[in-house]
Amino acid sequence: MSQPVFQRVAILGIGLLGASLAHAIRAYGGAGEVTLYDADPEARAQAARLVQGHMFETARAAAEGADAVFLCVPVGALGSLTAEIAPALKDGAILTDVGSVKQRASEDMAHACPDHVHLIPGHPIAGTEKSGPGAGFADLFRDAWHILTPMPSDDPAYAAATDRLSRFWQALGARVETMAPDRHDRVLAITSHLPHLIAYNIVSTAYDMESVEQGEVVKYSAGGFRDFTRIAASDPTMWRDVFLTNRDAVLETLGRFSEDLAALQRAIRWGDGDALFREFSRARGIRQAVIEAGLDTDEADFGRRALAAPKPDGDA
Amino acid sequence: MSQPVFQRVAILGIGLLGASLAHAIRAYGGAGEVTLYDADPEARAQAARLVQGHMFETARAAAEGADAVFLCVPVGALGSLTAEIAPALKDGAILTDVGSVKQRASEDMAHACPDHVHLIPGHPIAGTEKSGPGAGFADLFRDAWHILTPMPSDDPAYAAATDRLSRFWQALGARVETMAPDRHDRVLAITSHLPHLIAYNIVSTAYDMESVEQGEVVKYSAGGFRDFTRIAASDPTMWRDVFLTNRDAVLETLGRFSEDLAALQRAIRWGDGDALFREFSRARGIRQAVIEAGLDTDEADFGRRALAAPKPDGDA
Repeated sequence: MSQPVFQRVAILGIGLLGASLAHAIRAYGGAGEVTLYDADPEARAQAARLVQGHMFETARAAAEGADAVFLCVPVGALGSLTAEIAPALKDGAILTDVGSVKQRASEDMAHACPDHVHLIPGHPIAGTEKSGPGAGFADLFRDAWHILTPMPSDDPAYAAATDRLSRFWQALGARVETMAPDRHDRVLAITSHLPHLIAYNIVSTAYDMESVEQGEVVKYSAGGFRDFTRIAASDPTMWRDVFLTNRDAVLETLGRFSEDLAALQRAIRWGDGDALFREFSRARGIRQAVIEAGLDTDEADFGRRALAAPKPDGDA
Repeated sequence: MSQPVFQRVAILGIGLLGASLAHAIRAYGGAGEVTLYDADPEARAQAARLVQGHMFETARAAAEGADAVFLCVPVGALGSLTAEIAPALKDGAILTDVGSVKQRASEDMAHACPDHVHLIPGHPIAGTEKSGPGAGFADLFRDAWHILTPMPSDDPAYAAATDRLSRFWQALGARVETMAPDRHDRVLAITSHLPHLIAYNIVSTAYDMESVEQGEVVKYSAGGFRDFTRIAASDPTMWRDVFLTNRDAVLETLGRFSEDLAALQRAIRWGDGDALFREFSRARGIRQAVIEAGLDTDEADFGRRALAAPKPDGDA
């Protein structure tokens, strides 16, 4: 393995992303040494067993002397965590995060970040519906996009730091892009935040009908509903913070969604089959584009059958 | 293999379901002989290469003399297809279908079905986003629920026919339930029809934003959106018919969905984090129930990584 990009990195918050980051560093390099911290004592104990690195009892102690500090906590906690560790951050250190909302994350972190530290917010477009230290795995970031939203700066040292952080994520297998934070938030509002909101909502609606339909909602979930339950199993705290901190972009996108849904509803009510067929047809093109971009498997039904497979029953 | 349940079955419509049915019979039995027909000459030619069975040039010829006739066409085509084959149906034959809407399917088929035929509408809760004869596979129905919605009848011969059809589907690995058609339509409205409508709609909304966001919607689809593109890749004709023929139950369910979504929207606008957290938390319970019922894989992210796996690049 070549010289690591960073001598020492600190990972604060050891959930799905923090734990995956630690595993990825161990598997693919990128850093010589890893320090860890989580505010939850239980997660800390679990992470100490599962994740390689030096676990500290305070965020400040874990951050002390690190070349790069990764805040892997819900967006709403970024500001206070930055303030907490600010005094310990060394000269020229990089401070970054993995939050799903970047405008607000940038502002909150910038507010508390010392001038001698390079604040470079970031967001890996990677994740699963699982959460907690046990959910982490080394390949989470491989072939995934990692978006950096650098602060406005003419400082060559800042540019060099951004370049270094890019090389770090590339070392873990990610593809790095830079983008303005407000643009990031608009793009993610449609590609991630709205889909999660809708999934949560449809599961809620079904939950309330569950009593009416006597368990049949779960029983017949293979008709499409089960896909939504997967997305809606994601971490509630993280997602609460996403919607609280990307409010404007989400409301704008939700407005468009509701208008479009009203048009479909009207077509259903009035029996306008042509309108329905037209809308349903064009969706196929997007699926094709997603598959051609290598962003999803083309296996039917995500290839679930291959995985969930068959307790052996002798005749399959 | 024991004595097949039916001597001869006719499969009319050789798409994903019709082709799967033919493959399943070949793999697991249930019928001695299979006759086939599809209205589309191209599908007929493709099916003749891919699917075992005797292909006919007319639906009526394929249905003639069959002990059970399976109509595997979109719901909107069931009535006319029944009328077309009615003169060929033999005494005591079973006529069934695989349509996703049962009230309207029952009425349309009943209208054209001769008295000497046992009409027993049905619906397998199984499918993938693929369509056409090439999409079929023998295991589609294994461990899946198959819902029969028998007509009101005191005739012991009808009860025996229903029992026979149940045994046929069980031979293919399905778990059979019976249900009233209106109840079926209400249950499926929430477990299948609404999820598909929502998926189509979100892909549409994104499609229209695509020009604004310059390809980024596809590029960053791994954030959640790609799951919806899979569902929205389903057959547009089939789904148009579902929404046209299950209008009332879909509109009722959609009304509830929209009310719930408005409540979430309001919570986002007013920054009510507690309400968001509460809604997001309870969704996890439903996911757990789906997994415990054996209806989905518990692998993170549907285990996509295991499937879509890695062009070998030497370091994974």
